[in-house]
Amino acid sequence: MPQSDPPPTLLSPIFESAVVRAIFSDRAMLQAMLDFEAALAGAEADAGVIPAKAAPAIRRACQAENYDIAAIGAAAALSGAIAVPLVKALTERVSEEASGYVHWGATSQDAIDTAFMLCAKRGLSLLSAELRKAMLAAIALAEKHRGALMAGRTLLQQALPITFGHKAAVWLSGLCRARSAIRAAARECLAVQFGGAAGTLAALGGEGVKVRAALAGILELPDPGGTWHAERSRIFGIAAALAQASGAAAKIATDIALLMQSEVGEAFEPAAEGKGGSSAMPHKRNPVGSIAIRANHRRVGGLIATMTLALDGEHERAAGAWAAEWQTMRDLFRLAAGSVERLADMLTGLEVDTRRMRENLDCALGLPLAESLMMALAKNTGRGEAKRLVEAASKRAIAQRRPLAAVAGADAAISAALSNADIAAALDPKNYLGSVDLLIEASVAESRREMEND
Amino acid sequence: MPQSDPPPTLLSPIFESAVVRAIFSDRAMLQAMLDFEAALAGAEADAGVIPAKAAPAIRRACQAENYDIAAIGAAAALSGAIAVPLVKALTERVSEEASGYVHWGATSQDAIDTAFMLCAKRGLSLLSAELRKAMLAAIALAEKHRGALMAGRTLLQQALPITFGHKAAVWLSGLCRARSAIRAAARECLAVQFGGAAGTLAALGGEGVKVRAALAGILELPDPGGTWHAERSRIFGIAAALAQASGAAAKIATDIALLMQSEVGEAFEPAAEGKGGSSAMPHKRNPVGSIAIRANHRRVGGLIATMTLALDGEHERAAGAWAAEWQTMRDLFRLAAGSVERLADMLTGLEVDTRRMRENLDCALGLPLAESLMMALAKNTGRGEAKRLVEAASKRAIAQRRPLAAVAGADAAISAALSNADIAAALDPKNYLGSVDLLIEASVAESRREMEND
Amino acid sequence: MPQSDPPPTLLSPIFESAVVRAIFSDRAMLQAMLDFEAALAGAEADAGVIPAKAAPAIRRACQAENYDIAAIGAAAALSGAIAVPLVKALTERVSEEASGYVHWGATSQDAIDTAFMLCAKRGLSLLSAELRKAMLAAIALAEKHRGALMAGRTLLQQALPITFGHKAAVWLSGLCRARSAIRAAARECLAVQFGGAAGTLAALGGEGVKVRAALAGILELPDPGGTWHAERSRIFGIAAALAQASGAAAKIATDIALLMQSEVGEAFEPAAEGKGGSSAMPHKRNPVGSIAIRANHRRVGGLIATMTLALDGEHERAAGAWAAEWQTMRDLFRLAAGSVERLADMLTGLEVDTRRMRENLDCALGLPLAESLMMALAKNTGRGEAKRLVEAASKRAIAQRRPLAAVAGADAAISAALSNADIAAALDPKNYLGSVDLLIEASVAESRREMEND
Amino acid sequence: MPQSDPPPTLLSPIFESAVVRAIFSDRAMLQAMLDFEAALAGAEADAGVIPAKAAPAIRRACQAENYDIAAIGAAAALSGAIAVPLVKALTERVSEEASGYVHWGATSQDAIDTAFMLCAKRGLSLLSAELRKAMLAAIALAEKHRGALMAGRTLLQQALPITFGHKAAVWLSGLCRARSAIRAAARECLAVQFGGAAGTLAALGGEGVKVRAALAGILELPDPGGTWHAERSRIFGIAAALAQASGAAAKIATDIALLMQSEVGEAFEPAAEGKGGSSAMPHKRNPVGSIAIRANHRRVGGLIATMTLALDGEHERAAGAWAAEWQTMRDLFRLAAGSVERLADMLTGLEVDTRRMRENLDCALGLPLAESLMMALAKNTGRGEAKRLVEAASKRAIAQRRPLAAVAGADAAISAALSNADIAAALDPKNYLGSVDLLIEASVAESRREMEND
Repeated sequence: MPQSDPPPTLLSPIFESAVVRAIFSDRAMLQAMLDFEAALAGAEADAGVIPAKAAPAIRRACQAENYDIAAIGAAAALSGAIAVPLVKALTERVSEEASGYVHWGATSQDAIDTAFMLCAKRGLSLLSAELRKAMLAAIALAEKHRGALMAGRTLLQQALPITFGHKAAVWLSGLCRARSAIRAAARECLAVQFGGAAGTLAALGGEGVKVRAALAGILELPDPGGTWHAERSRIFGIAAALAQASGAAAKIATDIALLMQSEVGEAFEPAAEGKGGSSAMPHKRNPVGSIAIRANHRRVGGLIATMTLALDGEHERAAGAWAAEWQTMRDLFRLAAGSVERLADMLTGLEVDTRRMRENLDCALGLPLAESLMMALAKNTGRGEAKRLVEAASKRAIAQRRPLAAVAGADAAISAALSNADIAAALDPKNYLGSVDLLIEASVAESRREMEND
Repeated sequence: MPQSDPPPTLLSPIFESAVVRAIFSDRAMLQAMLDFEAALAGAEADAGVIPAKAAPAIRRACQAENYDIAAIGAAAALSGAIAVPLVKALTERVSEEASGYVHWGATSQDAIDTAFMLCAKRGLSLLSAELRKAMLAAIALAEKHRGALMAGRTLLQQALPITFGHKAAVWLSGLCRARSAIRAAARECLAVQFGGAAGTLAALGGEGVKVRAALAGILELPDPGGTWHAERSRIFGIAAALAQASGAAAKIATDIALLMQSEVGEAFEPAAEGKGGSSAMPHKRNPVGSIAIRANHRRVGGLIATMTLALDGEHERAAGAWAAEWQTMRDLFRLAAGSVERLADMLTGLEVDTRRMRENLDCALGLPLAESLMMALAKNTGRGEAKRLVEAASKRAIAQRRPLAAVAGADAAISAALSNADIAAALDPKNYLGSVDLLIEASVAESRREMEND
Repeated sequence: MPQSDPPPTLLSPIFESAVVRAIFSDRAMLQAMLDFEAALAGAEADAGVIPAKAAPAIRRACQAENYDIAAIGAAAALSGAIAVPLVKALTERVSEEASGYVHWGATSQDAIDTAFMLCAKRGLSLLSAELRKAMLAAIALAEKHRGALMAGRTLLQQALPITFGHKAAVWLSGLCRARSAIRAAARECLAVQFGGAAGTLAALGGEGVKVRAALAGILELPDPGGTWHAERSRIFGIAAALAQASGAAAKIATDIALLMQSEVGEAFEPAAEGKGGSSAMPHKRNPVGSIAIRANHRRVGGLIATMTLALDGEHERAAGAWAAEWQTMRDLFRLAAGSVERLADMLTGLEVDTRRMRENLDCALGLPLAESLMMALAKNTGRGEAKRLVEAASKRAIAQRRPLAAVAGADAAISAALSNADIAAALDPKNYLGSVDLLIEASVAESRREMEND
Repeated sequence: MPQSDPPPTLLSPIFESAVVRAIFSDRAMLQAMLDFEAALAGAEADAGVIPAKAAPAIRRACQAENYDIAAIGAAAALSGAIAVPLVKALTERVSEEASGYVHWGATSQDAIDTAFMLCAKRGLSLLSAELRKAMLAAIALAEKHRGALMAGRTLLQQALPITFGHKAAVWLSGLCRARSAIRAAARECLAVQFGGAAGTLAALGGEGVKVRAALAGILELPDPGGTWHAERSRIFGIAAALAQASGAAAKIATDIALLMQSEVGEAFEPAAEGKGGSSAMPHKRNPVGSIAIRANHRRVGGLIATMTLALDGEHERAAGAWAAEWQTMRDLFRLAAGSVERLADMLTGLEVDTRRMRENLDCALGLPLAESLMMALAKNTGRGEAKRLVEAASKRAIAQRRPLAAVAGADAAISAALSNADIAAALDPKNYLGSVDLLIEASVAESRREMEND
C-alpha cells in the first residue's frame, strides 16, 4: 500500500498514528475485503463447494488498486454496506464462468467483519510493538533515576518523597498491563467471520464449518467455532483494550504536562526544532505530545460508550448498532496508536531535571517528613507525646515559613530527645523511601516477563 | 470550494452529509482561518493599530487554494495547533513590509475558534434548512393521514388505536423543537473569538475591544463581549443542539425501521433502484436510511460525552480538552446533518400502507378497546360491574382467540345491557381517538410558527 | 417532607446536594405523583369528566406519608413502573364511590413524567439560586482583584500576565451562561404530561385538551400543547443545562486545584477545621471541594451520553430508553447541584495570595513580556531588527537564568535604542494588560443583567 | 449483614440486584474497610512492625454495626474521603495503648481501594454464578428447540430460516464469553492495595512488601506485586467485564422484546401474577424484564465512559478521577448484576411459541428460500439462467402476494427443469439450515467447558 494512503489531513498528524491510518485506510479496508473473497473462493474450491477453476479467477481480480473507492462508497449509500457494491464490482471483473461463484454462500457482514479483523490484527500488533518501545523507555527511566528524589504528589499536593524512578515504575506497570490487555485481545477476540445470510452457513450444505476452518487457516485468523454476527463481544473486547492503552498513555501524559508546568519544571518532552515553542513567547515550552494524548483519551472515553452500546443489537444483524462500529473502531485504533506512539517518543527522549525535583521537594520545609520525625521521636518519648510535639513544631514551621529541622532543633522537648544529627537523619528524604527499590525492581521484572511474549 | 472537497470516502456517503463535509473540509477550515486573518488585518488597519497598507496586502494572500494542506498538517504536529504553521506560511506570502502585521495581537486559538464559528454558522444554517424540509414532509403526512387508524404501541406492545397522522404529528413536534434548538444555538452560541495570547488583548493597547467589535462586523459573527478562550459553553451549546437534532431524527428512524419489519409492514422508506435490496433475498427491503440515522445517533451519544468533558479545561487554555473539540465537533456536524438529510428524504417519500395498519390493529381482537367497552357498559351496570364483566370477556377472547365483539355479544350480562350495535360502536377504534384531531392541529400550527423564523 | 429524607449515605455528603436529594427523594417523587393524581381529579371534576365528589375524596388520599415506599418499589418490579402499584394503593385508600375515578384517563407515564417535572422545577430553581450565589462571589473577586497581577497560563505554561480579577471575570461568564441555560430550560422544557395510554387522551372524549390545560394550571407547570410521551427533548434539554452548570463549576474547580498546588500556592479553598487536612501530613491542604466537583463532572459526562440516547425510543413509549432516564436525571440533578453549591462556598470564602501570584509571575524572568519589549524597540529599530534582537536576548536570559531586563540592559544594540527605564517600563506587566479592565466590567455588567431575571 | 441493607428504594427493585446492593451497601463498604484495618494490624503485628497486642485490640473494634454511617459520611465531606473519619472513629474505639497503631503506615486510598476489591470479589462471584444460571437456561433452550424453525432476521427484516435453537446458541455464546470475561477480571484485576501516603510504603521501613503479601493472604485477595494507587487499569478491567455482561444480557433482552411484539408473538417472558400486565389493556403483556435490562445497558454505556476517563489521573493520587470511580463502580455492579439476574429468570421460564414462529416464517411466501430454489435449478439450467428465472418468479410472487412455490410451479421454464416435488423440497426451510446442528453443538460444548471453571 502506498505510503501516503490515506493522505494526511489537517488534523490527523497532530493526534493519530500514520501507520494505523494506513492499516485502516479505505484502500486497505477494501483490500482486506478482497482478501476475504479470495480466501473464501480458495477454501470453497478446496472443499469442492465451487469449481476448482473459479478460485484463481476470483483471486486474480482481488487487487484493491483496480477498484474505484469513491464509486463503491457512493453505491454503498444505497445498500447500506460497502460489501454489496464491492462484490458487484468484483463479480464484473471475474470471467463469466467463475463470476457465479464470487462471495459464494457469504453475506456482506462476513466480508466486512473479517476485513476488520484482518486490519485489527495488524493494528494490535503495531500497538504491542509501540507499547514495548514505551516500556523499554520507562524501564530506562526507572533504573536511571532509581534514587532521584522528588515529591510524591497526591490530590495535587506534595505528600511524601518518592523517587522519579518509582514514578517511572508506576508508569511502566500501566504500560505493561496495557500491553498484556492488547495481547489478550489479539488472542481472544480476533477471528474470522463466516455465517452466510443468517449465520447458519445455509448455502454451504454440510460443508460450512469445514470451509470456515479452511478460511481461517488461509487468512491466519482464529476460527471462532461459531457465528458472531450478532454477538459483538469480540469487537468490544478489542475496543476495551484500546481504551486501556489510551488510558495508560494519558495518565503518563498528564503527569508530564504537570511536571512541565512553569512553576514545577521537573521533566520535559524532548525538544525539537519548532516543537511546542512560540516565537512571541520564547519561554514557553508547550507539552505538545501530552496535549495530543490527553485530547485523544477524552475522545476515547466517548467512543467506548458507543462500542458498549453496540453490544446490544437486534436479532441476526443489528439495525444501527453494527454500522456504528465501523468508524468508531477506526477512530479508536487511530487514537490509541497515536497516543502510544507519541508516548514512546516522549519517554525515550524525556528530559529530566533532577536538581529541580530536589529543589521543589525542599521547598516544603521538610514537612512531608514530619511523620518520619515523629517515629524517630516516639522511640524516646512514646508515641502520643511524639505526635503532639511534632504537630506543634509543624504548625510553627508553616506559620514562620522556616524549615521543620530548624524549628525542631530549637524545640526544647524535641532536642532533649534527639540530637541535631538525629533530627537531620529523620528529615532526610532518602531515609524515608520505604520499599522504593523493591517496588521498582518488581515492576521492571514484571515488564521484562511481559515483553518476552509476542 | 470545489464540489469534491473533501473527496468522499468508503464510509462517509452512507452516514454523513456531503454538504457539511464540504463546509468543514480541511480546505474550508483553512479558508475560514484565512478569512479571520484578513478580517483582523482590515479591522486593525481601520483602527489605526497596523498600517493601512498592510491590510490589503494580507488579504490578497488569504486564498486557501495557495496553501499546502498536507504540509501545514504535518507542521502542526510540532506546534500542536494548525494556526501556527498557517500563520507562518501566510507571513511568507505577504510582502515584507506588511508581513510583520500578520496575525497582529492574535493567538492561535483566536484563529481556530473563529474559523470554527464561521463553519458552524454555515452548518447550523444547513441543518435549519434540512429540518424545515423534514418538517414540511411530516406536516404533509400528519394532514394526509389524519384519520388513518393504526395501533398505538407502548413498550413494543399494541396499546390503544391512534392514527398515523397523530404519529407523524409527534414526530413533527420533535423536529420542530430541534429546529428551535438549532436556531437558539445559532443566536446564542456563535461568536467571534479574539483575545490574544492570554485573553487580555494585551498587544492591542486600549484598542482591543474596538477591534474585536469591528472584526465581528466584518465576519458577520456576533461580538461575544468578552473572551471565551477558556469558557467553552458556546461550543457545548452547539453540540447539544446537534445532539437534539440527531435524536429527533433517530426517534423517527427507529419507528420507521420497526414499521418496516416483515411482520408489520406499515410504512417503508422510499424505494429506489438498488436501495436496500438484496439480489439473493428479493423479499428483503432493508431500512437503509433508518439504519444510518440510528448508527449516527449511537455515535453522537459518545461524542456528546467528550464535549461535556471539554467544558472543564485548565486556566487560560486547556491542555487537551480544547484539542479534543476539533474533530469531535466536525463529526457531530457531519453526523447530525447526515441524519436530518436522510430523514427529510425518507419522510418526503415515505410509503404508507394504511390497509396494513388497519389489518394489524384488527389482529388484536378488539382488545385495545376493552376500556371503551367498559365505559359504555358502566352507564348501565355501574363501573365496578362493568369492569368485572369486560375483564372476564377479554380473558375469554384471548384464550379462544376470538374477537372481543363476538365474545361480548355472546355474554348474557353484557348483551343484556348493550345491543350488538352498541358493542360494535364501543369497539370501533375511530370512536376512541380522543383529541387526535386537536393534537395534530396544534402540532402543525406550532411548526408553522417555528418555520416563520429564520 | 422531613429534613432527613432521604438519609445521607456514606458517599452522598461528599458530592451531592442534600437539598436536591430531598427534592428528588423517593418520598418526594411519590408525593409529586400523588400531586398529579389529586390535580387530575380536580381538573376532571371541574370539566365534568368525573363526578364532582370524587375529586376531594381522591385528594384526601394523596399524602405520601401514608404509603409504603418499599412495598410500592417491590411491586413496581412486576409492572416495570412505579405508577402502577401507587395507583393501586391510592385506589384502595379512596372511598369505593370515588375509587373508580382515580387516575381517570391517565397512564403511568403521565404520572411519572409530570412528577419528574414538578421535582425538576424545584431543582432548577435551586440551581438558579446557587448559581446566583456563585456569581455574586465571582463578581466580588473580579472587582476586588481587578489589578492583582498573575501569570496567564495556556497549556499549563505561563504565557502573558493577566490579573486575578480577569480570571474571575472569565469564571463569572461561565456561571452567567450556565444560569441563563438553566433558566431557559425551566422556561422551555418544563411541562405537564397528559396523554393517556397512547397519547391521544382517548378516555377523555373531547375534553382531553381542556383537562390538560386545567391540570397544568393547578400544578403550575406549562401546558405543552401536545403529547410528549415519545418526544423526549424536554428531558434532554434539562439534562444539557445541568451538564453546562456542572461544567462551569468544574472549569473553576480545576483552576483552583491547580492554583492550590504546593508549587503554585496562589489561591485556596476556604479553610475549615478538619477540612482537607491530614494529621500525618500537616503541610497538605487538599482541594476537597474541587475534587468533588471534578469527580462529579466526570460522572456527568457519562450521564449525558445516556440522556442523549434516551432521545431515541420506540413508538408511543420506549422499551428501555424511558426507564433509563429516571435514575440518570436524579443523578444529574444531585451532582450538578452538589457542584454548584460547593463552588458557591468555595468562591465566597476563597483565600487569594496576591503576593504569591506576583512572585510566580516574576519567576519567569520577564520573558512573558518579550513581545512588549519588542514592540517598544520596534519604534526605533524597525520591526524585523527588533524581533531579532529580542529573540536573541530572550535565549540568553533562559540560558543564563537571568532576568530579561538585565540581559537587555547589557545588550549594546538594545540599550542604544532604549534606556533602562524604557526597558523596565516595557517589561512591567501592569503596562501590558490590554483591555483587562473593560473585559472585567463587561462580564460583571452582563452578569448583573442576567441576575435581574428570575 | 442484614437482609434489608440497604433498604430497597422506589426504583432499585425494578433494575438492580438486591444481592449486589447488599454487597456494596454502605454498611458492607464500611465493614470491608474495617476488615482491611483488622487484617493490616494482624499482618503488621506478625511482622513485628507494631506490637503483637495491638492487633487483637484493633480487630475487636472492627465491627461495622458499631459505627454511625451518617456521621462518617457527613465528616467525609470535610476530608473528601470516607477513610479519614472512619479511621478516626476506629482509633477512638481502640484502647489507648493500641490506638496509636491503627491504620499504621496506610493511607486512605489503601483502605478504600482494598475495601472495594473485597466487595468486587463477591460481586464478580455472584455475576459468575448468575451467568451460569443463564447459560444453563440457554443450553436447555438451544437443545430443546434445536429444530424449531423460525425466521432469521437481519436489519429487522426476515432473511433466511434459522431454528430457535440456533438463536439460543448465539445468545449462549455471548453469555459464555461474558462469564469468561468476568472470571478473567477476577483473576487479573482483583488485588489488595497497600502503599502508604505516596505508594512507597515509607512508614514500614524495609518490611512493607512483606506486610503487603501477608495482608493479601489474610484478606484472600491477590498480592499485586506493586502499588496501583495511580494505575487504575484493574478497576477499568472490572468495569469492562461488567459492561460486557450487561451487553450480553441486553442483546438477548432486545431480541425477546422484539419477539414479544404484538405482531410477532414468538416468545414471551415468563408470566407471573401482575407481571407486565395492565388492567385497562388486558391484551398487553409488557416485556418488563427486557425493558429493565435494556434501560440498564443504556446507563452502563455512560458509566463506562466515566471509568475510561478515570484511567487518566494526576500523579500519585488523582484529584477527581479517583473519586469519580466510587459510585460509578457501585452502579455498574448493581446494574450488570441486576440485568443478568433478570435474564437468568427470563431464560429459565421463557415461553416459546414454535407454532407462531413457523407461521411468521411462512408469511414470507417462501421468498427467503429463493436462493435455495436457484441452486436446485442451476444443476439443470446453469447458474446464470437459474438466477434469471428465480428472480423473475420472486418478483411475480411479491407482486401477486402468492407463494413462490405456486408461482414457480406455474412457470414453464422452471417446471420443465424441476418437478413440483423438487420445488417443494428446495423451498422447504428445514432443507436449508446449513450447519445449524453443528453450530448449536459447538456453542453448547464451549459453554460446558467454560462452566467447568470456577
